[in-house]
Amino acid sequence: MVNSMQQNQKLKVAVIGGGSSYTPELVEGLLKRHHELPISDLWLVDIEEGMEKAEIIATLTKRMINKAGCEINVHLTTDRKSALKDADFVCSQFRAGRMEARLRDERIALKYRMIGQETNGLGGFSNACRTIPIALEIAKEMEELCPNAWLLNFTNPSGMVTEALIKHSTIKTVGLCNVPVNMELGAAKMLGAERKDITMQIAGLNHLVWARKVLHKGEDKLAELIEQLLGGNDQMMPKNIPPFEWDAELIRSLNIVPCAYLRYYYQSRDILDKEFTASENSTNRADLVAKVEQQLLEIYKDPMLDTKPKLLEERGGAYYSEAACELMSSIHNNKRSIMHVNTRNNGAIQGLPDDCAVEVSSVITSSAILPLNVEPFESDTLRLIQQMKEFETLTVKAAMTGDIATAKRALILNPIVDSGSHIDEALQETIRENLDFMPAFAHRLA
Amino acid sequence: MVNSMQQNQKLKVAVIGGGSSYTPELVEGLLKRHHELPISDLWLVDIEEGMEKAEIIATLTKRMINKAGCEINVHLTTDRKSALKDADFVCSQFRAGRMEARLRDERIALKYRMIGQETNGLGGFSNACRTIPIALEIAKEMEELCPNAWLLNFTNPSGMVTEALIKHSTIKTVGLCNVPVNMELGAAKMLGAERKDITMQIAGLNHLVWARKVLHKGEDKLAELIEQLLGGNDQMMPKNIPPFEWDAELIRSLNIVPCAYLRYYYQSRDILDKEFTASENSTNRADLVAKVEQQLLEIYKDPMLDTKPKLLEERGGAYYSEAACELMSSIHNNKRSIMHVNTRNNGAIQGLPDDCAVEVSSVITSSAILPLNVEPFESDTLRLIQQMKEFETLTVKAAMTGDIATAKRALILNPIVDSGSHIDEALQETIRENLDFMPAFAHRLA
Amino acid sequence: MVNSMQQNQKLKVAVIGGGSSYTPELVEGLLKRHHELPISDLWLVDIEEGMEKAEIIATLTKRMINKAGCEINVHLTTDRKSALKDADFVCSQFRAGRMEARLRDERIALKYRMIGQETNGLGGFSNACRTIPIALEIAKEMEELCPNAWLLNFTNPSGMVTEALIKHSTIKTVGLCNVPVNMELGAAKMLGAERKDITMQIAGLNHLVWARKVLHKGEDKLAELIEQLLGGNDQMMPKNIPPFEWDAELIRSLNIVPCAYLRYYYQSRDILDKEFTASENSTNRADLVAKVEQQLLEIYKDPMLDTKPKLLEERGGAYYSEAACELMSSIHNNKRSIMHVNTRNNGAIQGLPDDCAVEVSSVITSSAILPLNVEPFESDTLRLIQQMKEFETLTVKAAMTGDIATAKRALILNPIVDSGSHIDEALQETIRENLDFMPAFAHRLA
Amino acid sequence: MVNSMQQNQKLKVAVIGGGSSYTPELVEGLLKRHHELPISDLWLVDIEEGMEKAEIIATLTKRMINKAGCEINVHLTTDRKSALKDADFVCSQFRAGRMEARLRDERIALKYRMIGQETNGLGGFSNACRTIPIALEIAKEMEELCPNAWLLNFTNPSGMVTEALIKHSTIKTVGLCNVPVNMELGAAKMLGAERKDITMQIAGLNHLVWARKVLHKGEDKLAELIEQLLGGNDQMMPKNIPPFEWDAELIRSLNIVPCAYLRYYYQSRDILDKEFTASENSTNRADLVAKVEQQLLEIYKDPMLDTKPKLLEERGGAYYSEAACELMSSIHNNKRSIMHVNTRNNGAIQGLPDDCAVEVSSVITSSAILPLNVEPFESDTLRLIQQMKEFETLTVKAAMTGDIATAKRALILNPIVDSGSHIDEALQETIRENLDFMPAFAHRLA
Repeated sequence: MVNSMQQNQKLKVAVIGGGSSYTPELVEGLLKRHHELPISDLWLVDIEEGMEKAEIIATLTKRMINKAGCEINVHLTTDRKSALKDADFVCSQFRAGRMEARLRDERIALKYRMIGQETNGLGGFSNACRTIPIALEIAKEMEELCPNAWLLNFTNPSGMVTEALIKHSTIKTVGLCNVPVNMELGAAKMLGAERKDITMQIAGLNHLVWARKVLHKGEDKLAELIEQLLGGNDQMMPKNIPPFEWDAELIRSLNIVPCAYLRYYYQSRDILDKEFTASENSTNRADLVAKVEQQLLEIYKDPMLDTKPKLLEERGGAYYSEAACELMSSIHNNKRSIMHVNTRNNGAIQGLPDDCAVEVSSVITSSAILPLNVEPFESDTLRLIQQMKEFETLTVKAAMTGDIATAKRALILNPIVDSGSHIDEALQETIRENLDFMPAFAHRLA
Repeated sequence: MVNSMQQNQKLKVAVIGGGSSYTPELVEGLLKRHHELPISDLWLVDIEEGMEKAEIIATLTKRMINKAGCEINVHLTTDRKSALKDADFVCSQFRAGRMEARLRDERIALKYRMIGQETNGLGGFSNACRTIPIALEIAKEMEELCPNAWLLNFTNPSGMVTEALIKHSTIKTVGLCNVPVNMELGAAKMLGAERKDITMQIAGLNHLVWARKVLHKGEDKLAELIEQLLGGNDQMMPKNIPPFEWDAELIRSLNIVPCAYLRYYYQSRDILDKEFTASENSTNRADLVAKVEQQLLEIYKDPMLDTKPKLLEERGGAYYSEAACELMSSIHNNKRSIMHVNTRNNGAIQGLPDDCAVEVSSVITSSAILPLNVEPFESDTLRLIQQMKEFETLTVKAAMTGDIATAKRALILNPIVDSGSHIDEALQETIRENLDFMPAFAHRLA
Repeated sequence: MVNSMQQNQKLKVAVIGGGSSYTPELVEGLLKRHHELPISDLWLVDIEEGMEKAEIIATLTKRMINKAGCEINVHLTTDRKSALKDADFVCSQFRAGRMEARLRDERIALKYRMIGQETNGLGGFSNACRTIPIALEIAKEMEELCPNAWLLNFTNPSGMVTEALIKHSTIKTVGLCNVPVNMELGAAKMLGAERKDITMQIAGLNHLVWARKVLHKGEDKLAELIEQLLGGNDQMMPKNIPPFEWDAELIRSLNIVPCAYLRYYYQSRDILDKEFTASENSTNRADLVAKVEQQLLEIYKDPMLDTKPKLLEERGGAYYSEAACELMSSIHNNKRSIMHVNTRNNGAIQGLPDDCAVEVSSVITSSAILPLNVEPFESDTLRLIQQMKEFETLTVKAAMTGDIATAKRALILNPIVDSGSHIDEALQETIRENLDFMPAFAHRLA
Repeated sequence: MVNSMQQNQKLKVAVIGGGSSYTPELVEGLLKRHHELPISDLWLVDIEEGMEKAEIIATLTKRMINKAGCEINVHLTTDRKSALKDADFVCSQFRAGRMEARLRDERIALKYRMIGQETNGLGGFSNACRTIPIALEIAKEMEELCPNAWLLNFTNPSGMVTEALIKHSTIKTVGLCNVPVNMELGAAKMLGAERKDITMQIAGLNHLVWARKVLHKGEDKLAELIEQLLGGNDQMMPKNIPPFEWDAELIRSLNIVPCAYLRYYYQSRDILDKEFTASENSTNRADLVAKVEQQLLEIYKDPMLDTKPKLLEERGGAYYSEAACELMSSIHNNKRSIMHVNTRNNGAIQGLPDDCAVEVSSVITSSAILPLNVEPFESDTLRLIQQMKEFETLTVKAAMTGDIATAKRALILNPIVDSGSHIDEALQETIRENLDFMPAFAHRLA
């Protein structure tokens, strides 16, 4: 299946945000696939402020490569352009404003009685406005330095960042998330099936995605999977997401397997109440993440460590590497794997614009991402998708123009955001606190 | 313009819920148009429990007719079938469960931290479930007793009741509301124009409606009207709705004139906060209405009163009569007036099913309601309409089947209802408290 | 109903192609409405080659005005810009290439075994390519000289010319045709009804239009009208179109009243066979028209003639004046008449682009044309409309770009044109013979 | 990749029309895949009149199996039910009315100056009306005797037969044609590529299908393939279709690779003229086919023959076996191959109903056919698809109801059929001559 000519080619991979504590996971995945993905150069790019941490990561990376006996040159740099020059794959996993910004987003959201989350609601909006201008800057550099490279985006909010890239750049972009791959792996376990015998059809938007079909040996096991999910045996959830109970009556009626993030839409008040409680106990999500982060770095520093440590899996990024490396290999080798990615809609999901980003099961070829067709959703589920997509599209527009009315129109449409005069205040505060990353909005503070 | 043959015909009008305190307004409208709408028999139908009040109304009605010097026989009855027999027009303005049910709805909604309102959110849902079975029963009787009559529905929630009638009955049904007519009359005043020179194009759903065009002598005055609205000179609002401030930045960006009820969607938290305050001060809307109601009845009893009293206008029903009587006259005389009514979509608003009810400016003929075409909405406004229409359609389905999962799917889609486990509790309480009117749901309490 | 302020205004009307033998009909219509349409200046514009004929028309026009006792200044000129300067209404009724071009189109079409007709098939394509560049030139002048004027286009092919104007000019344009007005007047006669009591809903494209509803006193008389049509009592057809027999089985199944031009699509081979026979007998349509034209001019020269002569009605333009003058009056006086015009779709007919021209019943106001919503067509009728609209849209594009592949794509989609290598030859011949009017295509002959 | 448990299973395959001279090709394909498709029983079903020929085929089949050393029991029967009982796969390749009917169809079509072809125009209509009732009868028997079997339909007109089965039966049905597989294999040759490196995305309807993407090692080779096609190097055409020249200007502008049958739509008059000439020379397609058929049977009789003879490839069925056997294997082994099949649309092609049959590249699993999403077509190509689909849907409806008006509506919409009074005559003759197969239409002759 693997094309020998291509295999001889030496590949250059650049990782933007390479100093991330997730990087060891990516490295593990690359090493596991070295026979089919012949990488010669791995460039880790990070910003000045992140170099201390990045050095730790780069050093660990080299130890891991040595142990695997592969020949991959590791480069750590703050000079993005050198890293992008003639790259074959660019993995984007940076965090604009670093963990502080995420903490701040959650705090502001809660202050205005809103769910604080980095990919939806006010937090998702804020994150998008910080991130999209940088993502487009990178894409612009790629258009010049490596126009034929593929851009794999895991930077959150992945759906909106991917949409901005698809609409405003010519670079071949695929948006990735570990949620669908977790669903597929988990479903296989729950059904006692081998993963290779399962064909799962997944569709929706990033973090708003459902399994529509769970095909296994001549049968659709959707109903069985739903019952297991409701019976408490949910193995599809990323480890970092705490378990909770679905409304069984609702899920059975919808007859669809929701991703874990759907709780934000099917149980929004319960989540908000929990967040308030957690906040009072100083146990909000971002804080927890920061703590694990610190622990990880300590472990990474250990000069004896030459594999990915167990603790990393608890960060919630598990299978990012699975998804990213499989995607690179499938492109490189024209494997035609079915993967669940963020790509241009082109009618795959009826009722959404052709030019927006959707998260759908797709056949991965060396030349193009070919989405499987999505059977029409039931109309209430479609309405939710349309509403969230409109939020995303308006947010992308606001991020690029700095238009505050567009921002408001985005937010009041979002189902986890109440409309009202507090929106104006929350936006003011968000802009003020993120001014370095949102110069386009500065005019509104004057 | 008036067809002489038709004019000679004597018309029979039946009013379901004829004992309503709004009836004098309707009577006033009919008397004003007696030259073109030759009614010989006016049947007021009400239930046993409402007869004391209905007697007061019927007596006042007779005094008003006498004063006007018209020959109209007034009949008061609890026997709906006699009233419907061979009727030409049936006006439906009953309230299922009377004012107590409305008060109860508002109370339950607030208990679960939701906006309490009789046409949207949990209150609208509850009201629809009580009302739709009765409305369909009336339509069924009409199919037998007066199959060619027109049914004018003002019973709230008017949009959902009209949708149920359109989908499940063969009777020609038009849904009416005083909101659009208030917008048109108010806009004329605000622009210093004569009403006859204004052509206002209105579109959306009942209580979720916007003016799209405000045509006057070769120009579209939309922008001017928006500025007046934002400048505080709003004369389009029904008198019973307290004034409030729109977000000017938002409304200018939307570039559309919202009806007063849009505040529930553009300022939902502000409304909820106000309702909480009012509730603590025992000044909720339903209580106020009940008080005015009592005052009205006292006035109606005065044997010297032979015209509609001023106080009635404060009830919020102003121009109901305007709308209803003009509609009957326009049908009877094939006037081809442009009115704003609830009717079958048939593609008038793109992006909604053909068979749902929409509120749109339409040409009224003696044979059919011909909606003006609606130019495509901007996509975020369309998403709001689609979402609310889905809520309405699921609510109609739930009202007819008693399926609780359908009810939940309706409610969690509604933008003024949070999803979460409180929905289940709120539904349980709603069903328990309305059991006489919602037998279809009884199974869920067992 | 008539606005007094506007009535005092003196109106300037310019007629492009004013030397047409149809002009007396227009003049008659204007004189009949002089009380509500206070025209002070009537400008007749024609080209140098047409001046001899135009003088005859202008002189007759003056005699007609004198007889009516109105004060209207008549101006005959070849200077289009003077005529357009500050005009209120511009009527466009020119014929690019004059009658010779039409004769030539029919001859070329027949040579390649195709129906020869000035508004569809190869003839319609050729006519569009000659006419659209001139129509856009006029619109451009209007944008400068009378940007607020209304442009009433009767120039054929009216649908395609209107589409070009709607898409490529800012001038308020309405396309007119005498076919729908003939249908409405004829239907009233056939049903023994007064026209004012009939509301006919007409929809489709120019010369591809159907009556969907024929409302009369509470009933839809569509079925009755279809039976009369099939029974041989067709009074809806313009006088110039020879009668023929519909396939009754087909029309009953379609359950829709076709305009006379639908025979080209429902009986295409019969028409083609007839045209061949006529052509062998030298009695093709264009020849006949030329002969009547000559007779008319002789009559017009009579210095005693001061009214529209009877013979004109046989030209097929009857009720052009009816349509045009009623439209001007309805705009001037904000009458809100329901007329059947070519205007921007905006979703009125589902399944067509928003920005294309359609022919639909519309409410005429002083500020805008408001189409009635069109209920979804049955799908085979919709497919025919979509196919013809695509032909029209591609033809407009070809006319503006001179792209021959676009021309071919247009023609092979047209249901009365066979695809095949003869298309290339027919196009070559058409371009060669019309080179003065189709400079954009010249490159293809080299 | 192959599932071992399933492999142990013994498969039963039934072939309806097993006496076809194509059967040896199917047998060859099955033998080639015996290691992955463990067939134990092969049932050949045919009608009494075909038994002589069927015996020859069955005997050859046995010789081929013996030579291959496989253990497959061959059963020849006229008892369809025994063959269907517990079958795993049913291949339907019968011809209703046998070759005589096809010859008759072509003759009648030409008599009325229409293209005579077994899958489109009048011939396709006639063939569908004969075939669909039988196909549905088979499906009904399958629902009882082997409800979980897959039905592979190659019976022409394959698109319409598949649509009838999809709409009116619960049996899992896939429609197959050798056209797309010929395109894929030919494209690989033309591009000098290995087939496994090519991913071709094909979409449209049966015999109205285009390649949209021709992906090869990171590039889309569509433009290159078009130039080869226009340059005369067309290796994508089934061998039985005579070569001809495309209009290069047109095809380049369409920027899409047409299947060979598109000539009927892009060059219809040229085809018709050729058919007339051929008919005068008695060399029509059906006659040729009959002659080759006779030769084949003589060869098959040779007791020494134990492989598929070369001559069979000239019949035009080449790669039927390729397609059918690969499909069975892909289903049996859950291979997830990308194949080009007729299946339910479900939105894969935008602008067509969800429930119609389309021919699209799909991922074949053991549980379901998952179509790749189809990017929106350019609008004129979409219009052609929509028009032909409407013809097909109306034809299916006519075949089932015998409604003659529906038949007319189908035919006049078809781009290779002129409308006109000859349609009525041609339909009469078709019904009269096929009365045994079209009892539903008998009423129309009375």
